[in-house]
Amino acid sequence: MTLPEKVAQLFGVWVGASADGGEVAPYQHEMEEAVSLEALLPQGLGQLTRSFGTAPVDPALGALSLLRTQRRIAAANRFGIPAVAHEECLAGFAAWGATAYPVPLSWGATFNPRLIRDMAERIGRDMRSVGVHQGLAPVLDVVRDARWGRVEETIGEDPYLVGTVATAYVQGLESAGVVATLKHFAGYSASRTGRNLAPVGMGARERADVILLPFEMAVRESGVRSVMHAYTDTDGVPSAADEDLLTGLLRENWGFKGTVVADYFGISFLKLLHGVAGTLGEAAGAALQAGVDVELPTVKAFGEPLLKAIADGQVPEELVDRALRRVLAQKAQLGLLDADWDPVPEALAGADENDPAALRGSVNLDPAANRATARRVAEQSVVLLRNNGTLPLSRPRRIALIGPNAETPTAVLGCYAFPVHVGVQHPQIPVGIELPTLREALTAEFPGTEIVVAQGASVDGTETSGFAEAVALAKDADVVVLALGDRAGLFGRGTSGEGCDAESLVLPGVQQELLDTLLDAGTPVVVTLLAGRPYALGRGAGEAAAVVQSFFPGEEGTTAIAGVLAGRVNPSGRLPVSVPRRPGVQPSTYLSAKLGQVNEVSSIDPTPAFAFGHGLSYTTFHWTALDVESLQTGTAGEIRLSFTVRNTGEREGTEVVQLYLHDPVASVVQPVQRLIGYRRLSLAPGEAVRVKVTVPADLASFTGRDGRRVVEPGDLELRLGASSADLRLTVSCTLTGPVRRVDHTRRMHATFVTGPLRG
Amino acid sequence: MTLPEKVAQLFGVWVGASADGGEVAPYQHEMEEAVSLEALLPQGLGQLTRSFGTAPVDPALGALSLLRTQRRIAAANRFGIPAVAHEECLAGFAAWGATAYPVPLSWGATFNPRLIRDMAERIGRDMRSVGVHQGLAPVLDVVRDARWGRVEETIGEDPYLVGTVATAYVQGLESAGVVATLKHFAGYSASRTGRNLAPVGMGARERADVILLPFEMAVRESGVRSVMHAYTDTDGVPSAADEDLLTGLLRENWGFKGTVVADYFGISFLKLLHGVAGTLGEAAGAALQAGVDVELPTVKAFGEPLLKAIADGQVPEELVDRALRRVLAQKAQLGLLDADWDPVPEALAGADENDPAALRGSVNLDPAANRATARRVAEQSVVLLRNNGTLPLSRPRRIALIGPNAETPTAVLGCYAFPVHVGVQHPQIPVGIELPTLREALTAEFPGTEIVVAQGASVDGTETSGFAEAVALAKDADVVVLALGDRAGLFGRGTSGEGCDAESLVLPGVQQELLDTLLDAGTPVVVTLLAGRPYALGRGAGEAAAVVQSFFPGEEGTTAIAGVLAGRVNPSGRLPVSVPRRPGVQPSTYLSAKLGQVNEVSSIDPTPAFAFGHGLSYTTFHWTALDVESLQTGTAGEIRLSFTVRNTGEREGTEVVQLYLHDPVASVVQPVQRLIGYRRLSLAPGEAVRVKVTVPADLASFTGRDGRRVVEPGDLELRLGASSADLRLTVSCTLTGPVRRVDHTRRMHATFVTGPLRG
Repeated sequence: MTLPEKVAQLFGVWVGASADGGEVAPYQHEMEEAVSLEALLPQGLGQLTRSFGTAPVDPALGALSLLRTQRRIAAANRFGIPAVAHEECLAGFAAWGATAYPVPLSWGATFNPRLIRDMAERIGRDMRSVGVHQGLAPVLDVVRDARWGRVEETIGEDPYLVGTVATAYVQGLESAGVVATLKHFAGYSASRTGRNLAPVGMGARERADVILLPFEMAVRESGVRSVMHAYTDTDGVPSAADEDLLTGLLRENWGFKGTVVADYFGISFLKLLHGVAGTLGEAAGAALQAGVDVELPTVKAFGEPLLKAIADGQVPEELVDRALRRVLAQKAQLGLLDADWDPVPEALAGADENDPAALRGSVNLDPAANRATARRVAEQSVVLLRNNGTLPLSRPRRIALIGPNAETPTAVLGCYAFPVHVGVQHPQIPVGIELPTLREALTAEFPGTEIVVAQGASVDGTETSGFAEAVALAKDADVVVLALGDRAGLFGRGTSGEGCDAESLVLPGVQQELLDTLLDAGTPVVVTLLAGRPYALGRGAGEAAAVVQSFFPGEEGTTAIAGVLAGRVNPSGRLPVSVPRRPGVQPSTYLSAKLGQVNEVSSIDPTPAFAFGHGLSYTTFHWTALDVESLQTGTAGEIRLSFTVRNTGEREGTEVVQLYLHDPVASVVQPVQRLIGYRRLSLAPGEAVRVKVTVPADLASFTGRDGRRVVEPGDLELRLGASSADLRLTVSCTLTGPVRRVDHTRRMHATFVTGPLRG
Repeated sequence: MTLPEKVAQLFGVWVGASADGGEVAPYQHEMEEAVSLEALLPQGLGQLTRSFGTAPVDPALGALSLLRTQRRIAAANRFGIPAVAHEECLAGFAAWGATAYPVPLSWGATFNPRLIRDMAERIGRDMRSVGVHQGLAPVLDVVRDARWGRVEETIGEDPYLVGTVATAYVQGLESAGVVATLKHFAGYSASRTGRNLAPVGMGARERADVILLPFEMAVRESGVRSVMHAYTDTDGVPSAADEDLLTGLLRENWGFKGTVVADYFGISFLKLLHGVAGTLGEAAGAALQAGVDVELPTVKAFGEPLLKAIADGQVPEELVDRALRRVLAQKAQLGLLDADWDPVPEALAGADENDPAALRGSVNLDPAANRATARRVAEQSVVLLRNNGTLPLSRPRRIALIGPNAETPTAVLGCYAFPVHVGVQHPQIPVGIELPTLREALTAEFPGTEIVVAQGASVDGTETSGFAEAVALAKDADVVVLALGDRAGLFGRGTSGEGCDAESLVLPGVQQELLDTLLDAGTPVVVTLLAGRPYALGRGAGEAAAVVQSFFPGEEGTTAIAGVLAGRVNPSGRLPVSVPRRPGVQPSTYLSAKLGQVNEVSSIDPTPAFAFGHGLSYTTFHWTALDVESLQTGTAGEIRLSFTVRNTGEREGTEVVQLYLHDPVASVVQPVQRLIGYRRLSLAPGEAVRVKVTVPADLASFTGRDGRRVVEPGDLELRLGASSADLRLTVSCTLTGPVRRVDHTRRMHATFVTGPLRG
């Protein structure tokens, strides 16, 4: 291959599929200059960027458009190599008409990796069926500051929860033949003050133990084939130019063999925003040297600037060869280099390509089975934060449904759902999927109940003139269902989402005032949150009759919430992020050392209103009969314990057993506790189960003074709880023997085995 | 010496002087058990903690009390060694009746190290005159989060400003024979969420380039003899147990030869709060190993627990010997080991020790010369943030003086001023110094003006019933002087000060509402802030007639402010911290990389209302005739430039020339700009001065990828400005040659030479 042919394999072009099945067209975006496929294609093309995710197109015609373009690409270059087609799939395939699943923060709330794996497999199959090879998900950023707009895209604030759920997502996506992409590697969630892209100030130890852990888990356990670098710099080193991270740690230490792709425009940011490269050619060289293989979404640095830098001797051609080998190996693995490569995707098998009109509507990316899965995830993700007995609602005569999110179909969607991400720019085109509003869901759920509705206030406006009507409706109702929360959007167009960062965790606009006003009205208020991040609820945390937290629960979300309100669904979600008591105490998560939590020394109380892992049920569970095999083991050993969980209430329900580690004395300061295992248990009324847990000492490992991971001897406390603040059983045990070095081959999981009670 | 005798030299006992000149008594504090001097003294005693700073005593009788106790200590041990007596001197000697100077944040605002040196020399002389050997100041913490309660104790948010002013303070204190103590080493100001003592998450590079720089400057340039460790951990390693920091960097790299003392109770915190030691003996061993020599304020870990740990072989006795050598070397240097050691301090020379009553009132720690210095510092520290022409006030008929700080004498004091720190617990005892209120100062400054006063609101209450009276007064006045700000206090008793952290930078209580209400009243509002930290002023930043910012300006502070309002004093202070526009965007300082400042990518605008370095004058200055000798030099070279500053207004005034460095391309991400030099220039009307600046390339050095400090070749921009946002002259220059490693011997200053205009 000539050098231009090699380099052409290392970048993508951002395109949009043709609405009538013709070829894709390069996407004109404010951040890019026009790209000419005509000029590029003779050299080949590495990737096609988001042909489905750029404008609303019928999926079948989109598939046809992609197919035609792939044929053209393959025909245009000497080697007949097609492009890798990638799309976003943060919470479902980001294409018109595709299922909008709950956002990742809801996945975290399910504490159910198995379910997330199933969901991801569906997402992957849908993508693969229309010709997509790679999905830019999941997000493994661990929440460090809840003000950050992309909190909705994360799985939560605990690295073990993030790692396990993300791994399951990857397994699902990859099982459908789609390349999953871990992102954003690494540190993005710690952007200073929660401002998107802002520099990350973080020590190497925190980074290793919190930020990198989920990536390590996913690389080891999921077979993931791609990783995307983060936009941010950490302590002055941008991820895209961090060879220690992208090559030293990821490849040499963890053994990753796939491709590293750029976050959109991230390579050029090395010059434009980070100032670590003087030219785009230098930026390209720095990224290649660090280990970035593919520039996305389009060619900025890896084209002429890179060729010039190589010609000038600034960048060694070997770096191009290295990236090329990885790209071509992945294309080979995807079958794209096979002699009998067939570009026709499953969805178009047997279709008449010459009659596009006949294809319209032939591909359904939101079938009933998808919706059922979306429903299951939504139902398991709803978190009942507070309930004074008002829920479940028993045949209310009249519900006053109030709030900015009462009648907004898209209020269940995050900023990467197609209708919000793209559709919002095409208001004349229908959203493409059914999105029942909360009003519609309540109407269906409560057939005998009158439902009266008032907006009260908008999501983020300052107008309070609607309060009076809301109060009037409230006073005449049995109960108020108050639908508060966010409007997802991009770059300032929403209150949550990429570039929609919050200054504090006060509910947007005048929603807190609306809540307070309705609390004063006297009718019980059930707060239902459709939100992208946790908010301090002020008086609501203690005075609302109930608080139902959901994080953008997707197309079946309102039905799930209505089910919880009615009692049809027994809530089983648990908080993947703390819900703060005070709006200003950020950055802060439950994963904090003692000095981040003690109150004697500061006037600011960081205690959350609702702790990480919290979530109520309509039934009750008793935890009893703790048995520990041995209270002592070596630093290479394991602790085995067992206990009984019994559903002591009247109805079937789900308990989420959470295992936390407290390390009272260590050579470096430890968080007061951290999650090291969990298990969902669904139990019939009266049913009991024996849970046996094996905890390898490896789980007590952390990054020591010298930067190496160690297990230290000494006392430990294993805390079994229904949340991080509701500990039920505690085991004090001791690790003996020498300090033990461990590495990426260490055991990363406690094993949970459940069985019937003995005797 | 026996081991107990050695160890006894390594700790202090917290005592209070006797009000009638008898011996000091051990201070009973909630955090300590009773200490028996009787039992301890036969082994000797390392330090006496705050005999003046614990309860209000007449200075002469306090000196007598200390003298008697020193005699007893020397007599009780075999070697006749007295204790080192230390006191706080954060903003003046923290003793009853001693001058309360402006707080360090005001020192930063003066941009006048020479003046701060003079002030510190006065403080040192007063301390030395009554028998004190060591002062626990200055604070070199660089502000990283303005919510932190101790911001008032810092010199600002720029390490160069902090380093130069703190170095001057040390030089002054040490020139009086008092051991200065750099604190808090290192990182305390970055406590997470601004919560006192909370863990610090910070990378090694940020720490080196921001946090450690002022300490390095002071160690190299001031001859400082003591350093105090910080309470906090950084990335999991508590400073008190950080051998790399306290020994590797401080002693081996920078060459420090003095003592390292513990922050109060900090060694025991290694066990109690950090969890890096299992016992107090382990904590003692870890601290000694790291390089802590002296436990303060009293013996918790360095007594029995340490002796037991040594006996058990857990801690090598050599560590005690090492610390002892440093402590005794310092005592020798102080003359305490001299055969003819004379314990009688200067203030008691010739006094009749047997007639204490006759001594009362004989020592004046607040003489006129002190007050004159306090006045000078206060005057130079007042920052005029905004002025629509209302200031200076020209013979107003009636001033409505409104606000919670209008009539509070102590509103000018920070939390380490004796009346606030200690006196507040002894309300029956007079504060001991004259503290004119703002009302009194305005009355004196405006003899022909009627001054009507209303509180309007308290500092931090929620009551708004006083607004109506305030508005009524405002409507009948020519101008409103609105005295807002903080009440300093300790641990939740104030709105600023140690343990008085803020959740956001909204003015405390209902002060913003009071401000808004008065803005609506129509009379011009001059906001005067007596505060410990910067606050977002909401509408005030744009709608007040004027804003006068002062940071707890000390006993002459209201007189200085009144002078500014009247025009007697031409304001010359410059902001040592940014004044934010929005209250929630923390942690944030001006010292941020581009991605911390760009707005396109985040909905949160971090642009301050008033930038670092900002401050107005009643005259105007023109900067012209920039001349640069050469636009290019080697990485070991220097750039020489000159320019003219002319006072183009009608009255004498002071310009503060600020030199910022912008490094557009570097191997690690750089702040957009950082201060590398400054110079105050006082000019008569019409007067011009030629300023020659020599900028060594060393000032462009930063901590590179490998953790070593380097000067890199490439383009630089030298920006000369009246603030960081008001750049007047810019020089683009180039460093050539190889990357150059530099170390602690590098040049750390630009030189400024001023002279008359040529020709």
